Amino acid sequence: MSVRLGNVTFDCADPVAVSEFWAAVLEKPVDPDGTEHFQSIGRRTGSPAYLFAHVPEPKQGKNRVHLDLRTDDLEAEVERLTALGAKVVEEHAEWGFSWTVLADIEGNEFCVARF
Amino acid sequence: MSVRLGNVTFDCADPVAVSEFWAAVLEKPVDPDGTEHFQSIGRRTGSPAYLFAHVPEPKQGKNRVHLDLRTDDLEAEVERLTALGAKVVEEHAEWGFSWTVLADIEGNEFCVARF
Repeated sequence: MSVRLGNVTFDCADPVAVSEFWAAVLEKPVDPDGTEHFQSIGRRTGSPAYLFAHVPEPKQGKNRVHLDLRTDDLEAEVERLTALGAKVVEEHAEWGFSWTVLADIEGNEFCVARF
Repeated sequence: MSVRLGNVTFDCADPVAVSEFWAAVLEKPVDPDGTEHFQSIGRRTGSPAYLFAHVPEPKQGKNRVHLDLRTDDLEAEVERLTALGAKVVEEHAEWGFSWTVLADIEGNEFCVARF
């Protein structure tokens, strides 16, 4: 294969806080060698890994690329995610699926769906 | 595990064109049941799958979340990706890594790195 997915990278105001949020969401540890400018989850083992890089500019508008998470228990999972600091943006039930749009602690939209 | 990564979803002006681009990049087929509003790659088999959903609003600014691809041959891969319609945005060599920032056919930034 010519290429393979390596990382999903988030531009962040605060990579430490955002990586800690996503580590809690994904139930994986933050890699131990991060800095205030750069953090990662699963950089040596993840498929994909998650990178969190500081950028000076603020988030603008809705993210054009987002993650969809899957769970067996949507209600319990939304409760867990909001307790971690996520905010519910929208709830959907269409096309035979139920999913909730949330925003992480810097407003990055993501979805969680029952599968 | 409470949640797992299901999909990476792209908001698109043209889901058909963007899904065909990414299918060529990833060397995976577009799923056969798409429409002009929604396309997918690996929806039943992918880990993650890739979804492409039509949205009315245009892309604004740099994407806050992006994909990093890995390759063994960066120069050849950048040549392949640009032949598919990607545009080179920046080239980097820092921290012992070489990577190229590209934009897909709707301007979504992504990186390809030698690993």
